Amino acid sequence: MSKKLTTRSENYSEWYNELVVKADLAENSGVRGCMVIKPYGYAIWEKMKDELDRQFKETGHQNAYFPIFVPKHMFEAEEKNAEGFAKEAAIVTHYRLKNDPDKPGKLMVDPQAKLEEELIVRPTSEAIIWSTYKKWIQSYRDLPILINQWANVVRWEMRTRLFLRTAEFLWQEGHTAHATKQEAVSETEQMLQVYAKFAEEHMAVPVLKGRKTDSERFAGAEDTLCIEALMQDGKALQAGTSHFLGQNFADAFDVKFVNKEGKQELVWGTSWGVSTRLMGALIMAHSDDAGLVLPPKLAPIHVVIVPIYRNEEGLKQVMESATKIANELKSKGISVKLDDDDNRKPGWKFAEYELKGVPLRMAIGPRDVENNVVELARRDTQTKSSVPQEGIADYVELLLDEIQEKIYTKALNYRDSHITKVDSYEEFKSILESKGGFISAHWDGTEETEQKIKEETKATIRCILLNNEQEEGTCIVSGKPSKERVIFAKAY
Amino acid sequence: MSKKLTTRSENYSEWYNELVVKADLAENSGVRGCMVIKPYGYAIWEKMKDELDRQFKETGHQNAYFPIFVPKHMFEAEEKNAEGFAKEAAIVTHYRLKNDPDKPGKLMVDPQAKLEEELIVRPTSEAIIWSTYKKWIQSYRDLPILINQWANVVRWEMRTRLFLRTAEFLWQEGHTAHATKQEAVSETEQMLQVYAKFAEEHMAVPVLKGRKTDSERFAGAEDTLCIEALMQDGKALQAGTSHFLGQNFADAFDVKFVNKEGKQELVWGTSWGVSTRLMGALIMAHSDDAGLVLPPKLAPIHVVIVPIYRNEEGLKQVMESATKIANELKSKGISVKLDDDDNRKPGWKFAEYELKGVPLRMAIGPRDVENNVVELARRDTQTKSSVPQEGIADYVELLLDEIQEKIYTKALNYRDSHITKVDSYEEFKSILESKGGFISAHWDGTEETEQKIKEETKATIRCILLNNEQEEGTCIVSGKPSKERVIFAKAY
Repeated sequence: MSKKLTTRSENYSEWYNELVVKADLAENSGVRGCMVIKPYGYAIWEKMKDELDRQFKETGHQNAYFPIFVPKHMFEAEEKNAEGFAKEAAIVTHYRLKNDPDKPGKLMVDPQAKLEEELIVRPTSEAIIWSTYKKWIQSYRDLPILINQWANVVRWEMRTRLFLRTAEFLWQEGHTAHATKQEAVSETEQMLQVYAKFAEEHMAVPVLKGRKTDSERFAGAEDTLCIEALMQDGKALQAGTSHFLGQNFADAFDVKFVNKEGKQELVWGTSWGVSTRLMGALIMAHSDDAGLVLPPKLAPIHVVIVPIYRNEEGLKQVMESATKIANELKSKGISVKLDDDDNRKPGWKFAEYELKGVPLRMAIGPRDVENNVVELARRDTQTKSSVPQEGIADYVELLLDEIQEKIYTKALNYRDSHITKVDSYEEFKSILESKGGFISAHWDGTEETEQKIKEETKATIRCILLNNEQEEGTCIVSGKPSKERVIFAKAY
Repeated sequence: MSKKLTTRSENYSEWYNELVVKADLAENSGVRGCMVIKPYGYAIWEKMKDELDRQFKETGHQNAYFPIFVPKHMFEAEEKNAEGFAKEAAIVTHYRLKNDPDKPGKLMVDPQAKLEEELIVRPTSEAIIWSTYKKWIQSYRDLPILINQWANVVRWEMRTRLFLRTAEFLWQEGHTAHATKQEAVSETEQMLQVYAKFAEEHMAVPVLKGRKTDSERFAGAEDTLCIEALMQDGKALQAGTSHFLGQNFADAFDVKFVNKEGKQELVWGTSWGVSTRLMGALIMAHSDDAGLVLPPKLAPIHVVIVPIYRNEEGLKQVMESATKIANELKSKGISVKLDDDDNRKPGWKFAEYELKGVPLRMAIGPRDVENNVVELARRDTQTKSSVPQEGIADYVELLLDEIQEKIYTKALNYRDSHITKVDSYEEFKSILESKGGFISAHWDGTEETEQKIKEETKATIRCILLNNEQEEGTCIVSGKPSKERVIFAKAY
């Protein structure tokens, strides 16, 4: 397979699809809408997971595990939530296969083994978890419960794309229970901050923090907070959500506690999640026509060392230096791959690691050994320089920090230059078509207007910024009065 | 709920069930046969996972993720494997729910949304993975593939028990592909060694390493290696398996490679797994009538510190010492919980942490502060001593190592004294009923005899030891000649 990618300007969507496959991140499986996450892609996801998990624990959460199946009666208990997910529910109806009498060697569903009650493969776990919390919560002393789960979930999406929208995906879902509304609201906000910090400091992806409108809110929530990232094609991507559930699930599952005054009250809840969709955001935010660009904090390999040689003697000489440098780097916690594969030429390797987004490439040839230098190439800027071997580990360590910072700043500049204030619907449509990005505009607060804009332009309200500046204005569509601007964009 | 457990001698099975629930490890969910793994239980599982994952990576494996669903035609491709799992397959037949016209607010399976082909929720992933490997493997250069997956799987078991046998469970499954038989056989053996080392060094559970008989082999494998542990009631528990798959899956999914000589060959495979069942083994191997006993290497909390005080003044004084000690311990990487919860009395806390198997409990009262000592209680031996605060962190570090060692030695002594050689069927039955444990006996090698013994005594052949001593003898049942003894036991 050719490693050459379609360019972003030729076809952004095609560029993304090719990149995911050619950089060995993921591929479609033989199961409709489900992906295979390949080792290189999974290694990036593991780095995300480890860091998020650390932050969840630091903020007092514990991991647990709940069943993948939700019995139908439990699924339908919180009606809005059920309604929101019913249309994409994968349903287990039978528990046994038997030999097909008409087709030797083939199997068929055994009609005798029909379940009395159907099981839904979890699209999200509020129902199963709140039905469990009912057993765990009696008194205010049992609260708060601060639990996170790493799991797979299934939503039967009709149109799927690797990482961005798949029938099965991996995610984490936090589910917390609290004695007071204020505590639950604080938790919702805290977890949004955790997500925002992770996106910016680790993924190097700047995000807007805001609140969803009524129509975009999570099914069953009172309030949905979100982080919204901007991709290089000017489309937004919702990268994480944190929901204040009010007492909705407590009500649906009858989860009450006795408060300090001895009175029964319904429990307050939150839920929050990010998924393998973050992989899509990471890929689309930074990568270029030569392939992936990975921020060092999430790169499975920080530095690849490619020995350059003509003969056995040269190889030996070069490998000695290369191995020494590799060990120096490793002792600093830098992840190194020394690629001495004899079957591939250096040029092939250069292209391969460029495609895979390894932040730094170090080439060492016989002359470099003589001069005590290496050739160091940065993936993000695609620049090369000759660097002394002396003190190389310290140098690389600083450089990786600089690259992390630089990638973030580049994405931030792009994002900041793509938030456009408009004051008319004409301007709105024109910016949306020409420049894209986030558009800040006045809206009259009605679902009707929101819907009309969506139908006519495909743009949706991404969020109302947290701590949004209050500003008198008029809705760009209806002309009705508005007290604040909201953020629109076309989105993934 | 009373924290008092049924004792092992009263009812071992009941003791186990109560312990799992009362120590907050897991509980049954509202979904038939599926468990909820609670935070404390999950924290132990995470420690197992982290260590195993480290060892898999150290032996050259990478993680990846494959779909949870297996289309029926793919599932049935390797016939023996399909036959082995068909009777316990959870089957997805529909992908949408709709409002039930007869019952307002209720949902029903939408008959319009029937899948063209049924999907099996993976009971194991050979089928989906080998159908993927077909795309990845063309030449010997693409081999070996050394992949592991951490995932949930579903086997519709009729009789379930927490951790030991559940409809859904968590596990890891390694799936490797090789150019030669020898390499695949070595991989199979290597992974069995990894499992054995983990069981013995981390779980402190001694294991027998052996090979399954034809009738106990994994469906679709040529050879199944296993580790077998012994529980305190004299029953064996299969703790991990490593399968040499031969070319069976390569054949079923047409996975061929071009070898160095340019010829097409079928690929050789292995698969290997351990699951949350290990939690059952860990619990049953070491715990006692007072609760869990955890080896320090897998204990989420190494040391609990309980301050003892009469009044505010005492508390302040004691907390100062306690906090200082906690910090000293933490700086050595020892996991500490300082329990200053005011709502609970020290006695309650002592019982609670004993039940939860925290290896060391440290009590500090005003007099201890004066004398610069603490009272240290070991969970495994249930002994107490007064220990100087000076140098406490070094002392605790050494003591934790000693406890780890001691727990293993205790289990090893028990196991070793429960391997009994017998030379007649009478003796076999008598030992099985009186003493239990592993029984080493001659067997004629036929499935018929194996089956007869199983029916008459419920004992199965757990394994034929690796590097088994060759010894002429006669089968205890048929009297036919035998060249080696095999290991029998009643098993979980």
